[in-house]
Amino acid sequence: MATFAQIEAELRRGIEAHGPIHALGIASFGPIDRRRTSPHYGWITSTPKPGWRDTGVVPRLAHLGVPVGFDTDVNGAALAEGRWGAAQGLEDFAYVTVGTGVGVGLFVNGALVHGFLHPELGHIRVARRAGDTWPGACSFHGDCVEGLASGPAIAARAGAPAHLICAADAVWEGVIHALAQLLHTLVLATAPRRILLGGGVMEARPELLAGLRHELAASLNGYVPHEDLGVGIESYVTSPGLGSRAGPLGALALAADAVGDSRAGALPGV
Amino acid sequence: MATFAQIEAELRRGIEAHGPIHALGIASFGPIDRRRTSPHYGWITSTPKPGWRDTGVVPRLAHLGVPVGFDTDVNGAALAEGRWGAAQGLEDFAYVTVGTGVGVGLFVNGALVHGFLHPELGHIRVARRAGDTWPGACSFHGDCVEGLASGPAIAARAGAPAHLICAADAVWEGVIHALAQLLHTLVLATAPRRILLGGGVMEARPELLAGLRHELAASLNGYVPHEDLGVGIESYVTSPGLGSRAGPLGALALAADAVGDSRAGALPGV
Repeated sequence: MATFAQIEAELRRGIEAHGPIHALGIASFGPIDRRRTSPHYGWITSTPKPGWRDTGVVPRLAHLGVPVGFDTDVNGAALAEGRWGAAQGLEDFAYVTVGTGVGVGLFVNGALVHGFLHPELGHIRVARRAGDTWPGACSFHGDCVEGLASGPAIAARAGAPAHLICAADAVWEGVIHALAQLLHTLVLATAPRRILLGGGVMEARPELLAGLRHELAASLNGYVPHEDLGVGIESYVTSPGLGSRAGPLGALALAADAVGDSRAGALPGV
Repeated sequence: MATFAQIEAELRRGIEAHGPIHALGIASFGPIDRRRTSPHYGWITSTPKPGWRDTGVVPRLAHLGVPVGFDTDVNGAALAEGRWGAAQGLEDFAYVTVGTGVGVGLFVNGALVHGFLHPELGHIRVARRAGDTWPGACSFHGDCVEGLASGPAIAARAGAPAHLICAADAVWEGVIHALAQLLHTLVLATAPRRILLGGGVMEARPELLAGLRHELAASLNGYVPHEDLGVGIESYVTSPGLGSRAGPLGALALAADAVGDSRAGALPGV
């Protein structure tokens, strides 16, 4: 597969320039299988992304013979935000990406959430905006959050990529509604102390944040008293402290954890 | 308030019969405030239950001068199920009650979930069953899960209490759909290794379980491979091991934890 050839070439260049590799950190889109006892350990599994379903990732890099930290891109980004970014010192927080998919990395009780699977909250089915019957774009669920608010969903609905659609376009109302429902669910699921929203769509349209905060408060409708959040809504629903570096730094954090690297406490200069 | 007079009388009877109280365990319907630094610590807060909004519970019993374990009824029940019931040995699981309200107790990473709040997943807004426009009965959210599937919601919609409505009544289709959406969300939020469903409605209508399992699998639509659950769907979505004792035993577990009681490991003979 072309992507893996590029990864191998990049790794060879890195080894030539900087010396041997001590660990790999892989922060991948999901769903992934990270159960060590599974025959599919290290695979991307039931993704709707074309060409990636049931793809072994860790097995393809096993020949390097180094420890591997393997988790979702969003759990990795959450790890990085907790270590170096906007969630430092918080035991409970969420990192949401809105990009080619919608994903959530979750810290609960001071650790990343891994039940029998990692969080896949982009694929929850939520209440629809009144009168909005667009069927959604997710191949599994139609109008789940990812099917309504991911970059490809927005492009499918509006006929143009997210960064080219003007802020006044009606398509954003449906996007904000769906994402606010995801935030509503997050607040009532694990009551994170902060929710960070990153990913390509949020980076291209940072003005979505204001709409999301307003819609979240309207949806909760006073059930969770605002003062219980402990911070103002602007600090509660906000951007990642590491910006677009949260993802790559997440992979670094996973690699550092895989070898118990003592330098994990310092922000890498990348 | 009449209920507190009854509680005091019951406590006096207990003291006369069994001697002094060493700790209290209070497993209350929510939402509650359990932040020790809050001026409303020990209160029931924004409940829609008539007469209970903003009611101090722990303060009314402070005169007893004993340690108090205070959590939601469902977190308490989850604690009991993890210690003595159907979730022993599991680090990640959920206890769902469907009764006068809909609530969820959550274990993640081996501990009860407490972010800035306890879980309040009964109040998430979910996708509606196609063609179902009943507005729901929640005073905060209308057609959230509690507004569609709690005992009072069922009674409001069907005109009779849940235990008197025949199994073939169409009202159950909406109830099963809403609860299955809650389970769908739970699976994708913290991926619990088991989901236990208790409460008055589930006890009165245990046949709902089969419909819930079917509807959950249909809603996930293969996105989470069935084998990833590690157990069959019948063991995954099932009844509490402690039955209707999960709630009272939850209060006992909270009391035992409040004093670090070494007998906490043994199932009380109640």
